[in-house]
Amino acid sequence: MKDNKKSKGEVKSMKDTVAKFTKYMERINMFGQIGAIVSFDAETVAPEGGLAQRAKRASFFELEMHKLHTSKKMKKFLDELAPHVKELDDITKALYRIAKDEYNAKAKIPEELVEKYAALTEEAHDVWRKAREASDFAKFAPYLKRVVDAHKEMLEYRKDEIPKGGCLYDILLNDYEKDMTVKKYDKFFEDLKDTVVPLIKKVAASKKKIDTSFKSEAVSIPMQEKISELLAKKVGYDLNRGYITASTHPFCNSPDSTDVRITTRYDEKDFMSSMYSVLHECGHAIYEQGMGEDIAGSLLGDGTSMGIHESQSRFYENVIGRSLEFWQELTPDLKELLPKEFEDVTPEMFFEAANESKPSFIRVEADELTYSLHVIIRYEIEKLLFNGDCKIEDLPGICNTKYQEYLGITPPSDAIGVLQDIHWSWGLFGYFPTYALGSAYAAQFLHYMSQDLNVKKLVKKGDLSKINKWLNEKIHSHGSKYTPEKLMKKSFGEQLDAKYYAAYLTEKYSALYEL
Amino acid sequence: MKDNKKSKGEVKSMKDTVAKFTKYMERINMFGQIGAIVSFDAETVAPEGGLAQRAKRASFFELEMHKLHTSKKMKKFLDELAPHVKELDDITKALYRIAKDEYNAKAKIPEELVEKYAALTEEAHDVWRKAREASDFAKFAPYLKRVVDAHKEMLEYRKDEIPKGGCLYDILLNDYEKDMTVKKYDKFFEDLKDTVVPLIKKVAASKKKIDTSFKSEAVSIPMQEKISELLAKKVGYDLNRGYITASTHPFCNSPDSTDVRITTRYDEKDFMSSMYSVLHECGHAIYEQGMGEDIAGSLLGDGTSMGIHESQSRFYENVIGRSLEFWQELTPDLKELLPKEFEDVTPEMFFEAANESKPSFIRVEADELTYSLHVIIRYEIEKLLFNGDCKIEDLPGICNTKYQEYLGITPPSDAIGVLQDIHWSWGLFGYFPTYALGSAYAAQFLHYMSQDLNVKKLVKKGDLSKINKWLNEKIHSHGSKYTPEKLMKKSFGEQLDAKYYAAYLTEKYSALYEL
Repeated sequence: MKDNKKSKGEVKSMKDTVAKFTKYMERINMFGQIGAIVSFDAETVAPEGGLAQRAKRASFFELEMHKLHTSKKMKKFLDELAPHVKELDDITKALYRIAKDEYNAKAKIPEELVEKYAALTEEAHDVWRKAREASDFAKFAPYLKRVVDAHKEMLEYRKDEIPKGGCLYDILLNDYEKDMTVKKYDKFFEDLKDTVVPLIKKVAASKKKIDTSFKSEAVSIPMQEKISELLAKKVGYDLNRGYITASTHPFCNSPDSTDVRITTRYDEKDFMSSMYSVLHECGHAIYEQGMGEDIAGSLLGDGTSMGIHESQSRFYENVIGRSLEFWQELTPDLKELLPKEFEDVTPEMFFEAANESKPSFIRVEADELTYSLHVIIRYEIEKLLFNGDCKIEDLPGICNTKYQEYLGITPPSDAIGVLQDIHWSWGLFGYFPTYALGSAYAAQFLHYMSQDLNVKKLVKKGDLSKINKWLNEKIHSHGSKYTPEKLMKKSFGEQLDAKYYAAYLTEKYSALYEL
Repeated sequence: MKDNKKSKGEVKSMKDTVAKFTKYMERINMFGQIGAIVSFDAETVAPEGGLAQRAKRASFFELEMHKLHTSKKMKKFLDELAPHVKELDDITKALYRIAKDEYNAKAKIPEELVEKYAALTEEAHDVWRKAREASDFAKFAPYLKRVVDAHKEMLEYRKDEIPKGGCLYDILLNDYEKDMTVKKYDKFFEDLKDTVVPLIKKVAASKKKIDTSFKSEAVSIPMQEKISELLAKKVGYDLNRGYITASTHPFCNSPDSTDVRITTRYDEKDFMSSMYSVLHECGHAIYEQGMGEDIAGSLLGDGTSMGIHESQSRFYENVIGRSLEFWQELTPDLKELLPKEFEDVTPEMFFEAANESKPSFIRVEADELTYSLHVIIRYEIEKLLFNGDCKIEDLPGICNTKYQEYLGITPPSDAIGVLQDIHWSWGLFGYFPTYALGSAYAAQFLHYMSQDLNVKKLVKKGDLSKINKWLNEKIHSHGSKYTPEKLMKKSFGEQLDAKYYAAYLTEKYSALYEL
């Protein structure tokens, strides 16, 4: 009897711990959502002159979050839950996993460092924006150096997380995509190069001529804004729970699944640039808007990893948005909006122009075939920054040399070379390689989706509801409940495999360039 | 010696308490600034579908702030500082005053009530927006009833704050303008009526004809946006630390003095409507941007009261913006932007049209003369809501009857009658009467400013720098360091006196209408 009673008491106490832990995580979640709004504001409307105080606030807020993640209370929750993890329901288990990962990554780092780093990246980010406008890396260099040094200083406290035979950079890679390492990425990128590099050469040698003249047809920004809304509607991004605006670098920002915003950037002489940014961000947004009822609004109502998130943006941007069928469906509407501009353009011409492959400078505007090489360049530079001893002032040269080596072109300015991406200014290192994972996942999902659905037919009909539902069931609705590996196992019974992506690229570009 | 040592210890301990208290208040300040950004976002870009989760977040955040203001830690600070208030420096003294007022107002109210109220007003506010669009008070009525009832429920806990012989509503009046009461406002409004009501009658009987035909000249929204920027520049609202956008109800929102945003609303057939909203909000913004170095960015870097804040918006909107000299300076620029529209309009014609006085429906667009009657109507309705037993469903009727009684007109719809203002949806009761204080203060400041500066000449020259500097020294730079009464004493050696406003209105309208 005594034992029995004790057991009941234990169950009750565990229930109590879970309830308190859940409430504590909900507090973190609420602050996280508020942080998302503040960050969106900073990136879209906050005035230039507010930079210093904004940096102070960001630093304050970062520290508050840090304290919540690393508090004694949190440690106590983790210690109490640890022996019972297997008995927990899926939701509590996922909250425990996230809390534990955050605690392990953050608790070792002194608060002053966290505070300093938050203020620094806020400032560095604004300096980057100005340096990019001026196309002057020298302006940004001292800030980038401080960001990298501060980052390394923090990593020193996390050396125990380096996997066996691994390096500092592995910690960062794992931060953005659980269980990924330099070793795994090196292999993944080598495999990709095996397919991509010869294919690029064949494409370059092809005699196929693609007419792209109409791509630079002037389309006013108000008209492009209309097109953004049209695209959102077509792919199923719900604007009642969304908002589209402009920013220097397109992004998706989601306080919660009922409030998912995207940004794009407009160029009057390149309407497709914004179109594909919108489709890309719509992919992220549809993921965020598709959280299951059990997790919507909670900390788990958020994409599970960068790689899986990017798979959705790439899916809508490329697999759908760059297909012939998509253009067949879109062209009549586009011609109604711009009858004179595109009078003689056929869906096939749009499709071909949207898929022309040639080495170019801007990563976010690269075609599917050359895209991964842009990612590889950044990955290799980051390895140098964190494991090698390269000097910051040499980065423009290193970047340009790599562009020449992989793509046969040299960026003519810092703005479209080493300064083109926002990531380093925000201290996001280890993030870039997940972009290549995204495309590979997307091809793998297409493979499995095609076993259940006639994807091309549905896209041509303009009916994405079944496609969205399929992705929702397999991926979106689960949010962060599972790690990428667990999600892949649960939904597809296998892990990421680059072969689908290689096959997809080979098939698509062989057909397009008549190889 | 022993006593001396003890004294040194006490000094050290007081220093320590002040430092910790200051840090604690800075935390409240940082959260307050973050809250300002979130609120701006909700009012300008946040999507409709996010309402429920937004209400949840608002409720959460409100409760966090409530906890900070009413914590045991705060109580301890207040208890420790209380015996030493006189020895404190001005800044700590002001922080103590604010902390104490907040504690006294909030600590008595149960947290569940605070949480419930925050969520309720967030929801009520969105319902109001829709009800206003549909011009249907019945939609909003149940929410307004819940807001008033919840507010009364909270006030029950604060009954000890009612001044001798006072009432529930007094507590609210004091919340928005320290030391104001029904008794004082009743007297103030009676005095005003004594001047305004006969003046309105004389104006109505005047044979003076004012040409207002060009006021409805179509001006596109992009052009009005240009005019907004032009006005901002002219009055000295620094857009490098500011941002102008549109919202249903114009407002000024300031996370800190380096980030002060304003909104306006555009009507293509009424360009002056937005112009005067912009000038009004610029007044608020210049106040917020003008915080002294000792308090900028801190909790004290904020206007000291609603009445003083409104004095600044009214000063820039009316005293400056509705003067002949302002139009003399502005007209050439306006004609350059809109040469055809205003070809034959002279500065005098603009001036007269901008000052035409006749009973109208929309408070924020009322002329200076009839404006205070709009405020009186709201003040009397609020008295009924909190001290009387009027039914919510009777409000449209009560409102219309009062408009008929004071202004001789009856609102033809709820949208421009009882639903026109945002305030009640946000639970802001006791706020309206401060609007009338603002105009009275503004006239009083003009009186004293005219002793130091040739105001008319400076406005005609388009040089507001000396005027801004004068206001900055007397008012802006002090932020919340002093209560309105202390500020008035310090800067002018007297308290608010309605006689300046009465004289100002009499002089201005007698001249304009040739009375």
